[in-house]
Amino acid sequence: MDKKKFRQKYNLFLVEGNKTINELFNSNFKIKEIFSTDPQKLDRANVPVTHISENELKKISFLQHPKDSVAVCYLNEEKKLSDQNLQLVLDGIQDPGNMGTIIRLADWFGIEQIICSKDTVDFYNPKVIMSSMGSFARVNIVYENLTDYLLNTKNLNIGTDMDGENIYSFERPERMNLILGNEGNGMRPETEKLLQKSVMIPRFGKSQSTESLNVSMAAGIILGQLFGVRE
Amino acid sequence: MDKKKFRQKYNLFLVEGNKTINELFNSNFKIKEIFSTDPQKLDRANVPVTHISENELKKISFLQHPKDSVAVCYLNEEKKLSDQNLQLVLDGIQDPGNMGTIIRLADWFGIEQIICSKDTVDFYNPKVIMSSMGSFARVNIVYENLTDYLLNTKNLNIGTDMDGENIYSFERPERMNLILGNEGNGMRPETEKLLQKSVMIPRFGKSQSTESLNVSMAAGIILGQLFGVRE
Repeated sequence: MDKKKFRQKYNLFLVEGNKTINELFNSNFKIKEIFSTDPQKLDRANVPVTHISENELKKISFLQHPKDSVAVCYLNEEKKLSDQNLQLVLDGIQDPGNMGTIIRLADWFGIEQIICSKDTVDFYNPKVIMSSMGSFARVNIVYENLTDYLLNTKNLNIGTDMDGENIYSFERPERMNLILGNEGNGMRPETEKLLQKSVMIPRFGKSQSTESLNVSMAAGIILGQLFGVRE
Repeated sequence: MDKKKFRQKYNLFLVEGNKTINELFNSNFKIKEIFSTDPQKLDRANVPVTHISENELKKISFLQHPKDSVAVCYLNEEKKLSDQNLQLVLDGIQDPGNMGTIIRLADWFGIEQIICSKDTVDFYNPKVIMSSMGSFARVNIVYENLTDYLLNTKNLNIGTDMDGENIYSFERPERMNLILGNEGNGMRPETEKLLQKSVMIPRFGKSQSTESLNVSMAAGIILGQLFGVRE
């Protein structure tokens, strides 16, 4: 189940930990069954729960230090919402930790939808699910042909680029997509062509050797700015 | 060398990758020797370089996918600078990835010093060094008795707390410490007592279940705000 092809074959994915599993009861996700060392901590038992030992949990968990439960859940049917006023668009994000962090950011800022290129890491990947800390259940995530999508959206497509407009003077448009590129290569040239504008976070440190900020950190700082209320 | 006691016993730590190693030549850090599969890519060879095989590199590297070189470096003598106008203060940060990310943020925003509680993760920890992406060589990091330090600093001590002042209306004082607490437990009560104020990032998402932002992400968003130029 750590491989996309198996998740798709069986239409199932795993969620670990009572805390996140309990949140699923109030979400669109359906749980097939739960294996738990501590079933009392599960909110509701309207799904089959098997009481298992710590050792059994270790065998089915993807975690180095497994928590209390593993839930086997059904994949949701992907369904794109109409464009929201502020959306994230991911162009080839590969690192599950970044993906999870970005989903968590979206949830924090109340962003309801993330549009991903087809080659963006699968959000059902167990590392994404874990690092999103339950937020995956509150954000609608869809995988689209990005060129088609960006061509047809009525939102302004805003990229991130060191040559972009300073985020501190950028005026947030009424409707926008914030586009985040691949960790190593950035956005695809086809995506860049479809941008109306780019923004950048100025570097205040003096050293030229300083690495660019990680994509999820950059997303957080930009979102922080976009939500800022300027007097 | 992945254990603090060995680093302290031998007064040495490891830095991996030609890119970061090359940055050390322009820093206060002294390299003892380098083991490299690709010595040509090293800027200067005024330190002993041993050409090694990929297999040998695998044995001495801490990385799952080792890069090209490992440098054995001397620990620097710790030396606190006088208080800077904006500093980060870490109260028990434990996760090496968070620590590395925070060092990288400091470097990005030109923050010259980080004050750490004695129980904050050692920044010479190989995972910290790696995730700081070379930034550790550009930020002065010291470990202090935090209560003593916070009592005596002339900077305002500003914490982070969901009950704090909204970061979007917070006026940055001329001299301040931004204090970041432990991942699970936050700041120690002794630290909290010495705060002049706290700030918080408002959550725009509606769900009460949303987890707080990770400490390094919160730091990034707050720093982004503090550096914002308000018209």
